Amino acid sequence: MSDALLSAVAAGVTVFDLGRTFFPGMPQSPNHPAYTHTLPRRHGDMVREDGASAANDMIVLGTHVGTHIDAIAHVSFGGKLHGGVDAYEAGVGGKYLEHGVHTIAPMVRRGVLLDVPRALGRDACEPGYEITVADLEASARAEVRAGDVVLIRSGWGRRFDDGAAAYVGKESGVPGISEAGATWLAAKGIHAAGADTIAFERLAPGGGHALLPAHNVLLVEHGIYLIEAMALDELAAADATEFTFVLAPLKLLGATGSPVRPLALISDPAAVVSAAAGSAAGGAAGGALAAGGAHG
Amino acid sequence: MSDALLSAVAAGVTVFDLGRTFFPGMPQSPNHPAYTHTLPRRHGDMVREDGASAANDMIVLGTHVGTHIDAIAHVSFGGKLHGGVDAYEAGVGGKYLEHGVHTIAPMVRRGVLLDVPRALGRDACEPGYEITVADLEASARAEVRAGDVVLIRSGWGRRFDDGAAAYVGKESGVPGISEAGATWLAAKGIHAAGADTIAFERLAPGGGHALLPAHNVLLVEHGIYLIEAMALDELAAADATEFTFVLAPLKLLGATGSPVRPLALISDPAAVVSAAAGSAAGGAAGGALAAGGAHG
Amino acid sequence: MSDALLSAVAAGVTVFDLGRTFFPGMPQSPNHPAYTHTLPRRHGDMVREDGASAANDMIVLGTHVGTHIDAIAHVSFGGKLHGGVDAYEAGVGGKYLEHGVHTIAPMVRRGVLLDVPRALGRDACEPGYEITVADLEASARAEVRAGDVVLIRSGWGRRFDDGAAAYVGKESGVPGISEAGATWLAAKGIHAAGADTIAFERLAPGGGHALLPAHNVLLVEHGIYLIEAMALDELAAADATEFTFVLAPLKLLGATGSPVRPLALISDPAAVVSAAAGSAAGGAAGGALAAGGAHG
Amino acid sequence: MSDALLSAVAAGVTVFDLGRTFFPGMPQSPNHPAYTHTLPRRHGDMVREDGASAANDMIVLGTHVGTHIDAIAHVSFGGKLHGGVDAYEAGVGGKYLEHGVHTIAPMVRRGVLLDVPRALGRDACEPGYEITVADLEASARAEVRAGDVVLIRSGWGRRFDDGAAAYVGKESGVPGISEAGATWLAAKGIHAAGADTIAFERLAPGGGHALLPAHNVLLVEHGIYLIEAMALDELAAADATEFTFVLAPLKLLGATGSPVRPLALISDPAAVVSAAAGSAAGGAAGGALAAGGAHG
Repeated sequence: MSDALLSAVAAGVTVFDLGRTFFPGMPQSPNHPAYTHTLPRRHGDMVREDGASAANDMIVLGTHVGTHIDAIAHVSFGGKLHGGVDAYEAGVGGKYLEHGVHTIAPMVRRGVLLDVPRALGRDACEPGYEITVADLEASARAEVRAGDVVLIRSGWGRRFDDGAAAYVGKESGVPGISEAGATWLAAKGIHAAGADTIAFERLAPGGGHALLPAHNVLLVEHGIYLIEAMALDELAAADATEFTFVLAPLKLLGATGSPVRPLALISDPAAVVSAAAGSAAGGAAGGALAAGGAHG
Repeated sequence: MSDALLSAVAAGVTVFDLGRTFFPGMPQSPNHPAYTHTLPRRHGDMVREDGASAANDMIVLGTHVGTHIDAIAHVSFGGKLHGGVDAYEAGVGGKYLEHGVHTIAPMVRRGVLLDVPRALGRDACEPGYEITVADLEASARAEVRAGDVVLIRSGWGRRFDDGAAAYVGKESGVPGISEAGATWLAAKGIHAAGADTIAFERLAPGGGHALLPAHNVLLVEHGIYLIEAMALDELAAADATEFTFVLAPLKLLGATGSPVRPLALISDPAAVVSAAAGSAAGGAAGGALAAGGAHG
Repeated sequence: MSDALLSAVAAGVTVFDLGRTFFPGMPQSPNHPAYTHTLPRRHGDMVREDGASAANDMIVLGTHVGTHIDAIAHVSFGGKLHGGVDAYEAGVGGKYLEHGVHTIAPMVRRGVLLDVPRALGRDACEPGYEITVADLEASARAEVRAGDVVLIRSGWGRRFDDGAAAYVGKESGVPGISEAGATWLAAKGIHAAGADTIAFERLAPGGGHALLPAHNVLLVEHGIYLIEAMALDELAAADATEFTFVLAPLKLLGATGSPVRPLALISDPAAVVSAAAGSAAGGAAGGALAAGGAHG
Repeated sequence: MSDALLSAVAAGVTVFDLGRTFFPGMPQSPNHPAYTHTLPRRHGDMVREDGASAANDMIVLGTHVGTHIDAIAHVSFGGKLHGGVDAYEAGVGGKYLEHGVHTIAPMVRRGVLLDVPRALGRDACEPGYEITVADLEASARAEVRAGDVVLIRSGWGRRFDDGAAAYVGKESGVPGISEAGATWLAAKGIHAAGADTIAFERLAPGGGHALLPAHNVLLVEHGIYLIEAMALDELAAADATEFTFVLAPLKLLGATGSPVRPLALISDPAAVVSAAAGSAAGGAAGGALAAGGAHG
């Protein structure tokens, strides 16, 4: 086995699952079609002559619900998408062939975690708190480099289990970066940025999404992808600073976003994939979600 | 940078994109809800006071359309799911909490490509051709090991661009493995198997999905996941034999499958991620989809 | 013109529109998939060579949202549908061929309005108020006969414009009949019953839908259809007591309900359909919805 | 009972059901989102403490599938909707507030059946046959008047049971009126026109929907509604010429069409509604769909 990457995998990798479970009623912005899951066919509905039966699903959703990525086509400013593309013209035909989510290449890149509450010495940022440039610098225990994917943890993610009102935070406000933090990230030349909130941005209490300065700086001005509603607590609990970040958005032709399940991979000799873990037996609900190790 | 995996990534990785583009009208089985994409909001529909505007999507789909993975809950035999779970009881409540797709751990594993047409000395397997155990053995240029993900290329994938009738192949039949090939794979202790057809199985001409013996052997008897409608031609063209396989199905609670975008990663010093590729400029439609290199 | 009905129509009919407008975000029970409307194609997306263009829609909805009718298959009691049909068996295959909404014949019947607040001398029934048999008898200014459709106005309908929380009334409770009122209606041999609430039933404050005694009496025991979320205020304002009731549910094969737009028709010589009203000019949004007259 | 209309109903009315059953896989134009029905909840999924259980549905559909009405907003010509409304501007916001289907008043009007095959002395019009003005005049056994709803039977409706390819008729062509027939209808000042085909128009063999001259004349130039995919055979078999036509489209805010179930009512002393027919017992699947009589 001469492939360096495959050798590194064989030597043990812990997989951190940064995506959330999708279920009807999960917290999401009311601006987007709600996630719905239903079974048009269940086992027993149609049994084949040999005794086999198949069950299947229908799902309906917006592409900005659950853990998801924003394509460049998602936001415009002054009638223009990133690069000066006319935003109205780009959508004629009912899909954004330019800057749609299908144009996002799979990401296998260096990732860096900025654990803001850790740097601030608290459990989580306050509702409506603006994460400053100083906070970002204090949180960056590994250097942020061009081409990186930067994940900003505010500690807000624990509210996901408290329901939509708590997590969406319209009344309370939501912590996040604003124009200054976005400018700092853009200057680093990063490839994508993620957060554990659904807005990515700092939202003022009661303010909702009236203004989205970080989206404008990152998506529109610099063509930097945004990943929202990530699950970052386990990665932070493992004290991770840098890692291999992997993300493969669905290639939904002309869409402005995609639901995703991002991964952070860290080499760990204790996490060698054993042959015995090769079946579904290792994938029980709520059990180990790691490909090799036990985190995520 | 002491992380072995991250070092291997930094040394250059070519990413092969094994997922297909999702678009309305794409080839899919008529047994599943069709993929639909629409834009409830386009740029200009609602412009914020600062001149910003957001566009968004709604998608409707079955979970067994496009490139997708079958969860263990998808198929039952004799009223039982894998492990003897009662198939009817498992679905009460409208979701398969047991063996649903949300229970599939992200895969970061060794992958092996079995390029059957290459071994047979032809461009593609004939419609309705059963890929035999001898074919599998002749195609396996790298050893198949326990825990692997095995991708079986029949050459049928080129028909995806010819429309649903050609790709689904109800009239023509579709090449694939049947019970014997599935038994051979199961005996190897593999984790998952993929194919470039939508059925995974060999389908007889005119026969449709009346019988699905490979599903029974792999999903039901052995709890081995199936990945269907993969794009395998570029990986084959690169003469790949073994590689790092990465797959992160969406965690759709209780669903029987998920649309996916699987990746094959191969170390390649010529494919170092450059800082300059860090923005959307590198993601033009139809352009390079690789994270580092140019394939996929 | 010898057709008696057509002569009566020609002599003038005022049409009362008893259905509500469907729009995303409208008040509905959270138990059902939300109504969503989107335009996959807008004018200009695809212009034909002759300069013509078509716009079209996609809608997603539960069948118990907006003004709708409950089919007999909607509710079971003790595992049985009306007539002793096994409720589980009836749904195998993913549709209720027995007692599904497609089995409801169009209704062209005598309708009777029971305006409860009018009888009580108030604007509207209190939240959580149980409409009693005495109230029903006091409200029935026209005799209730076998085969009739009986519409029970509680005055709750005005809350539809106050949003979902106000209209669904989980916290406040909702006025309506309960087991006693349902038994009284069933004893009259009516064909269907309607209400201006989404639950049809009296709901206790904070109690939600834990128990649905009126559904059990009417749908399950007696096979009497229920129509919910009706707009009854204009009909009441016109002091209507009896009228021709017309309802044609969509024939959704095997579904448990259908969105509907029920009508109440009253002869009115002042409402003769004029030829000049024969075009779209007469159908401006928010304008006259009557076929002949001006009400509704 | 002094209401003339109600007296006429009491004297007996036969109801002809002019709407088709909606089911997954039904014939429809591939240009529109397919009709899908699924049961998110079935009986037994959640049983209340008193033994009651509710089943419910989710449906997904375009508004131009099955029997449906075209709103004025559906078609534009030269960038304009009926009345010179700018077609692009009208759709900004993702809904057609002007000329949307919610603006269509319920119809309780005189209806006239033009049974073209009867006039031509044949079972059905040939595929691709253009119904001429002479054909319309020969078929009009009752005078066509301003404000009427005119239903044009081509005999094509029997193909609905033969599947989508046969009914949509892309290869074969479809019979219908074209510009001349539409101009004739418009000159009569009619309110709406219906047909037993899905296109309403004559379609040339192999030609598809490249040109839609009748839509332009009726919808765009004259604001006359179109009703498509009607079931007209039973009405024709009853030798009906004029009748009361009733149609209540769903008030889908801003949509370009609505699924419907139109009715034709004819006075018939033999069809008195009996009290005994007041329950679900009279609504068995496939049984009598008439409110009073037995037709439809």
